[in-house]
Amino acid sequence: MSNKCIISIDMGGTKILAAAINSKDGIIALIKRPTKPTSSKSDYIKKLADIVSELIVKNDLSRKNIKAVTIGFPGSLNPFTGKLAEAPNLGVSNFALKSLLQKKIPFPVLIENDVNLAALGIKKFGVAKTAKNALVVFFGTGIGGALIFDGKLYRGSDYSAGEIGHIKIKSHNELCGCGNRGCFESIASRAAIVKKIQYDMKCGKKTAISKLIKPTEKIKSGTLARAVKLKDKVVIKRLEEACKVSGTVLANINTLLNLDMIVLGGGVIEAMDKFMVPRIMASFNKSVLNSSAKGLTIKASKLGDMSALYGGIVLAEEFLGTKV
Amino acid sequence: MSNKCIISIDMGGTKILAAAINSKDGIIALIKRPTKPTSSKSDYIKKLADIVSELIVKNDLSRKNIKAVTIGFPGSLNPFTGKLAEAPNLGVSNFALKSLLQKKIPFPVLIENDVNLAALGIKKFGVAKTAKNALVVFFGTGIGGALIFDGKLYRGSDYSAGEIGHIKIKSHNELCGCGNRGCFESIASRAAIVKKIQYDMKCGKKTAISKLIKPTEKIKSGTLARAVKLKDKVVIKRLEEACKVSGTVLANINTLLNLDMIVLGGGVIEAMDKFMVPRIMASFNKSVLNSSAKGLTIKASKLGDMSALYGGIVLAEEFLGTKV
Repeated sequence: MSNKCIISIDMGGTKILAAAINSKDGIIALIKRPTKPTSSKSDYIKKLADIVSELIVKNDLSRKNIKAVTIGFPGSLNPFTGKLAEAPNLGVSNFALKSLLQKKIPFPVLIENDVNLAALGIKKFGVAKTAKNALVVFFGTGIGGALIFDGKLYRGSDYSAGEIGHIKIKSHNELCGCGNRGCFESIASRAAIVKKIQYDMKCGKKTAISKLIKPTEKIKSGTLARAVKLKDKVVIKRLEEACKVSGTVLANINTLLNLDMIVLGGGVIEAMDKFMVPRIMASFNKSVLNSSAKGLTIKASKLGDMSALYGGIVLAEEFLGTKV
Repeated sequence: MSNKCIISIDMGGTKILAAAINSKDGIIALIKRPTKPTSSKSDYIKKLADIVSELIVKNDLSRKNIKAVTIGFPGSLNPFTGKLAEAPNLGVSNFALKSLLQKKIPFPVLIENDVNLAALGIKKFGVAKTAKNALVVFFGTGIGGALIFDGKLYRGSDYSAGEIGHIKIKSHNELCGCGNRGCFESIASRAAIVKKIQYDMKCGKKTAISKLIKPTEKIKSGTLARAVKLKDKVVIKRLEEACKVSGTVLANINTLLNLDMIVLGGGVIEAMDKFMVPRIMASFNKSVLNSSAKGLTIKASKLGDMSALYGGIVLAEEFLGTKV
């Protein structure tokens, strides 16, 4: 490899993705490793330093071409000071993530919230290329969001903007992981939908789910998609409820922000975008202030798991001031 | 007067305010004229041209010192093309407002939505001076909002951002002026609060309102404030309901946008900020995602009716590229 690149890492609660990537060639090399939440900060530092070394060695990457290492974290962090405030899914908080990593990694280290990073990727390399003002929403275990205003990532006053999953829906009372009740993600995330389907099953409602997976297996987005294909009434009803609430939340955000694009992503959308997107849009159209949505497009993301990796390129360019 | 200034106009549904104003001296001269909605576009053009002439003549202003005329309109408009899309309270829509005005007014004419203009005024001259990311909300006949991101006015993709009054509260069913149901302003604006109090009175509930005004008189924000001072239970209950809903809406916006300031203004707040603001904040604190509100301040605006007039200075500086 003769072109310059960065190493872009997406650190999740169950897996780490690490790629050598640049604007011209896209993903040059990719590795995926499982991980488990640990309360040990040094374990995370070691794991990340190891995966960088492994990616370089296995793919025989030229060290002098590597311009930065970018890492997306599922948590609240300040990309400028490099301090991580909180990462509930990883089990760590309050640490000087960037400076500790920098001691172990011989390239400039940059960190960013994973959803922000994914939005940057979708804006520069995905379906939001032409968007000026956009909301990117990921429907997965939780619901995360990121905002683009005037073509640039909006981080908020304290680097915690985009927490769409914790918008409260007053008419609902479900307990959320954050401790509050009625949060959007406690109603419409995959975890919430699955919880309701499991409740339906306990109540004796018949669903194809019990044939699709073993009782000990987890209900994943793919499982839900297969149940939809089988026209499973229980699953369809619960998904439609989630679409309805989602459409209303997105409509209210658009009424306020007058966006030109909303991008829907995450496992639930990827597994069944043709089912979910039209239903979310139908609910959206019923609630939105029409004048705020004249120039709006709602699209499913196509970058999947790769969006945060691509976002690393944008982050590196922002911080290093050089094209990658 | 030897200093340069602008003529800043705030065009409302019932009155026009026009001021000669600059950064250094503030308001140099001010006139206020009543107006009535008319479907005649030329009536508005004439009225505005006349008020400019009147202000100049009555105050013996030097024409060569007037650098621009700025006008705030209660409607959806594009300040760059100068086209007004819709101004429901004025009864006009779809017209080339700026170019028609420019033919009658011998100074550069600039137009902007009135709430945006007020937010610009509050940001540069009012309580939001230090704000980076702010929401300004006006509680009056309706509820209007404007957004400041990174110190600058955020207009949205189609110049209609800030329509907080039309955020839908699904658990409510009140009919809104926009034709939809359950809009925030159909629940918490002065008009909505008054409607509910009138309903209570029809149902025979005892309230001080009937002693404070004649049956033919309108219930204004000042009337409500006097009733609160008299500890009127009916009025207090209806205002508290409005505060509760308002707190939730503002909390959700902050959870998403991670602001550092929310400014509350408009007749309802001006008349009784000490009653309203703490109650809105109490409801806000119950709903907001704590991590999004760590650096947030909620304040009442102090500029009152003058905020849009001051905003004219900022608009003129933005468009003319010169200090006023």
